[in-house]
Amino acid sequence: MSTESLTHGLVPQRLARIRQLMSREGIHALLVPSADPHLSEYLPGYWQGRQWLSGFHGSVGTLIVTGSFAGVWADSRYWEQATQELAGSGIELVKLVPGQPGPLDWLAEQTPEGAVVAVDGAVMAVASARTLGGKLEERGARLRTDIDLLKEVWTDRPRLPDQPVYAHLPPQATVSRVEKLAKLRESLKDRGADWHFIATLDDIAWLFNLRGADVSFNPVFVSFALISQQQATLFVALDKVDAALRAVLEQDGVTLRDYSEAAAALREVPGGATLQIDPARVTVGLLDNLGSGVKLVEGLNPTTLAKSRKSLADAEHIRRAMEQDGAALCEFFAWLESAWGRERITELTIDEHLTAARTRRPDFVSLSFNTIAAFNANGAMPHYHATQESHAVIEGDGLLLIDSGGQYLGGTTDITRMVPVGTPTAEQKRDCTRVLKGVIALSRAKFPRGILSPLLDAIARAPIWAEQVDYGHGTGHGVGYFLNVHEGPQVIAYQAVAAPQTAMQAGMITSIEPGTYRPGRWGVRIENLVLNREAGSSEFGEFLAFETLTLCPIDTRCLEPSLLSQDEKDWFNAYHAEVQRRLSPLLEGDALQWLNTRTMPI
Amino acid sequence: MSTESLTHGLVPQRLARIRQLMSREGIHALLVPSADPHLSEYLPGYWQGRQWLSGFHGSVGTLIVTGSFAGVWADSRYWEQATQELAGSGIELVKLVPGQPGPLDWLAEQTPEGAVVAVDGAVMAVASARTLGGKLEERGARLRTDIDLLKEVWTDRPRLPDQPVYAHLPPQATVSRVEKLAKLRESLKDRGADWHFIATLDDIAWLFNLRGADVSFNPVFVSFALISQQQATLFVALDKVDAALRAVLEQDGVTLRDYSEAAAALREVPGGATLQIDPARVTVGLLDNLGSGVKLVEGLNPTTLAKSRKSLADAEHIRRAMEQDGAALCEFFAWLESAWGRERITELTIDEHLTAARTRRPDFVSLSFNTIAAFNANGAMPHYHATQESHAVIEGDGLLLIDSGGQYLGGTTDITRMVPVGTPTAEQKRDCTRVLKGVIALSRAKFPRGILSPLLDAIARAPIWAEQVDYGHGTGHGVGYFLNVHEGPQVIAYQAVAAPQTAMQAGMITSIEPGTYRPGRWGVRIENLVLNREAGSSEFGEFLAFETLTLCPIDTRCLEPSLLSQDEKDWFNAYHAEVQRRLSPLLEGDALQWLNTRTMPI
Repeated sequence: MSTESLTHGLVPQRLARIRQLMSREGIHALLVPSADPHLSEYLPGYWQGRQWLSGFHGSVGTLIVTGSFAGVWADSRYWEQATQELAGSGIELVKLVPGQPGPLDWLAEQTPEGAVVAVDGAVMAVASARTLGGKLEERGARLRTDIDLLKEVWTDRPRLPDQPVYAHLPPQATVSRVEKLAKLRESLKDRGADWHFIATLDDIAWLFNLRGADVSFNPVFVSFALISQQQATLFVALDKVDAALRAVLEQDGVTLRDYSEAAAALREVPGGATLQIDPARVTVGLLDNLGSGVKLVEGLNPTTLAKSRKSLADAEHIRRAMEQDGAALCEFFAWLESAWGRERITELTIDEHLTAARTRRPDFVSLSFNTIAAFNANGAMPHYHATQESHAVIEGDGLLLIDSGGQYLGGTTDITRMVPVGTPTAEQKRDCTRVLKGVIALSRAKFPRGILSPLLDAIARAPIWAEQVDYGHGTGHGVGYFLNVHEGPQVIAYQAVAAPQTAMQAGMITSIEPGTYRPGRWGVRIENLVLNREAGSSEFGEFLAFETLTLCPIDTRCLEPSLLSQDEKDWFNAYHAEVQRRLSPLLEGDALQWLNTRTMPI
Repeated sequence: MSTESLTHGLVPQRLARIRQLMSREGIHALLVPSADPHLSEYLPGYWQGRQWLSGFHGSVGTLIVTGSFAGVWADSRYWEQATQELAGSGIELVKLVPGQPGPLDWLAEQTPEGAVVAVDGAVMAVASARTLGGKLEERGARLRTDIDLLKEVWTDRPRLPDQPVYAHLPPQATVSRVEKLAKLRESLKDRGADWHFIATLDDIAWLFNLRGADVSFNPVFVSFALISQQQATLFVALDKVDAALRAVLEQDGVTLRDYSEAAAALREVPGGATLQIDPARVTVGLLDNLGSGVKLVEGLNPTTLAKSRKSLADAEHIRRAMEQDGAALCEFFAWLESAWGRERITELTIDEHLTAARTRRPDFVSLSFNTIAAFNANGAMPHYHATQESHAVIEGDGLLLIDSGGQYLGGTTDITRMVPVGTPTAEQKRDCTRVLKGVIALSRAKFPRGILSPLLDAIARAPIWAEQVDYGHGTGHGVGYFLNVHEGPQVIAYQAVAAPQTAMQAGMITSIEPGTYRPGRWGVRIENLVLNREAGSSEFGEFLAFETLTLCPIDTRCLEPSLLSQDEKDWFNAYHAEVQRRLSPLLEGDALQWLNTRTMPI
């Protein structure tokens, strides 16, 4: 019996019990988002209430339950999965389409006057609660955030994750926590704040030079932090920090309190204090603990900008990590070529061998996200992930897309390469070449320091648009330093809002990953990470340029070189020469041979 | 005795009288913006109260007067002029810098609790009044918009302009006013509005196929319009419309009422009615006349989007107007070359001869803006205008920048070309060539229909940024059809907010005008107008491409062709071949010879 049908039997029962509670509490509609108290990308099981209650296991989706209706809002990535998993559950799939009204709009439209909408305030951002609350108020309805209805019915709720916390140490930790705390306090002073509350796990991990393994791929740990000019308190399950680390932290002025005490600590913030928070990154449930005399200063967490700007010393470690990651890829690709025709290769074996190659490399910690190995039609789904139940065998002709990355003590990697299988068609080669043109155009761009990063997207897309091709995802996301593979504040995506905080600054690391997706046929994406480097000043201001950090050949057998201009070929050959120079000392045998062959000039 | 010193004597007297009135009315601060009831770019003298009261004659600036302070906020274009004109007046120049607090922020910070700030509501947009009012309220202060203090003291105030209104007729008017009104009413229905008030003069002129000459360069007339599903009322000084035109308008369902009756008509809008307005384009003084039962629907005026999308028939007329305009430019340039060394040429004689050449062309109506003829260092000021008192003689070596345009019955032109004087230096040629690369890059771009226009700016700038050069103005503005040379809603400028209404649609006309300005040395700008044309659909959606409308050689003597790539040369030669093909039938003698020489391939 499959998981789906097991869940199906239970979902109607669970819904019935939730509806009883809603009725008892006088609640018209219950909203269950995909969120946790840290507003993270990956949620621990403890916060997977939407999955438990709806039976829909996709990682992003919003459930709304009323007395007579239940629906899950999910974007196109999940329509197939949601249709399957929700069948017979009594829950509708509501297809979420960009630019169309979402679940909060639905609530704002459908909630009757006088009615109460409930959401667990522990998992809703202050900013979202304000928006929804405001919309409901306009209708004469009300938002209630002080009750967690799941608590009573979810009896087999998973426990909070309990992986140990460890220090990120020198040489890879290039700035001490004492220095980071001092700089943060300076930033707070500049903003007129004497206190600061942080709920975002990567900000906390970065600030304290600590790492964990509480969620997949992101080396973070479940925690909160409260900083004042005098004190720094880290709220974390105390048994996750050993005595030695605790002593070091205390010596550095960091007090530990249990994770559950963050709310109490917020209640203790003295009246008259000024507290900096990011309303999009702190939940209303926590913030409601503040006394009325506390004044808020709202804005991006200072650590979010600080951590995006890698130091020169960080950059050096990242270059070394990129060399190791590139060498691992070469070993994997050399194995893959030797294995063609000799053994059965599937999308899953690709993942296994690639992960094994990375694991052999020094300072490797974990993958930075689920490997995407997607053959032909599977490659047309940008977020495809092969499973035991459903994966392709790599055979015949076509394109294999591999998007993968690793966490190293000295950096986080994220790379996509196209692999020719048999003989790619002329159209497939044109798609790959056009995408490469986009990579090259943006990779060699210079731009004024401070430009809002979404505005750079058109540079990558222009050569792709030129042939009436486009792709629905962004061109680039920020990448952490042995931290989350997706971080802000910069984002190279014309779909993003060009807010002031997206400004490009020296030291930021961003992906460049244009693509082309032909549903049912194949998908193409080529991705490198680039570092914002100072490119000098002129009478027109300061300029930045990208240094390509990712080091791995781009397979010319997927390309049609005649479509590249001479200066594009020059960029490509110079890149391959650099890849050969930097990776060859780390390779031998077949892998070195593969590198040398695949970096020959075109 | 100069105008400046005349004014200087009067300004302190005027300020003293205004301060008496402020004291009588209990007003702490008076705000006098550069604005009229139509929120136009060019103001009739009647609304130049800020110039009259401050003695500062720049076209944009904001005056604030309190009991102890008076200041004019002006941007960098006007600092030199304002410093001169304000000297000894008791009014300070406050330098307005992008991204820094402006006059409204100053009021929000400086106004004491309980105090009243006054502004003539007749010249302040609803949106601005809401912003300022909100900020003052936060301080416990108040905004008053129901009093015009200037009225009592400005005894020699100019009269409202009284130029006749005339019809824009077929063939150039390609859509009848009856059809435009019907479409507008459809749009209003779609938005749930049954009434619509328009204060913007170009929207009104476009909607009714009428034109005027009440302000310089923009062929519009001072008016308001109130549209319902049943009625269309045009508020205009009745003696400006002759009996024949009035009869035609009435036949088309348009009622005329005097300009002064707009406020009364707003008071007559029935309670329960739903009225569409653009809060950024209607003044609070007018809107305050609405009864409390009238419900507002807020958004861009539907005519603003409709008029930006030129019809296929409009485009044909514009192509003809561009040919005539290009021919006029060739005649002018041929004269200029023959005149070098023969007669004394100044920035002013350039303007005279160029205007004369345009005036000889069929369907020419007026200039579309003040000609900018700027030699060397003057070219480094993007908004430079030569005057009798201050202008350069064109002699020696360097670059002459000419930015000019005409209003024709079948279209509005706006073109900038660089003219070599003597022998331009290698650096000047590099600047011109780099700017040309920007023009070419954007001119040949394709892009998805609906992309927000500010996002395209980086395509033009990339080749300029590549050499650490940038320019402070936008790359492109919308252009009207025998209407304002600056119109929205699209704008190609990374400095602009990428709002949904800036989306690119077929039929829009936009300038492409990158530049390079080296203060004290020279300035470079090359400008063409381009039309958004459908470029076909693919599985990735609909795409648009630009058709270059402007037809005039780009002088190769200002360029360094070796810096152009082969495909840039191909674009350049194809453009010149088209210019030669289209303009040669309209030219003869020296002008034809000049055209043929200047369009030879490189």
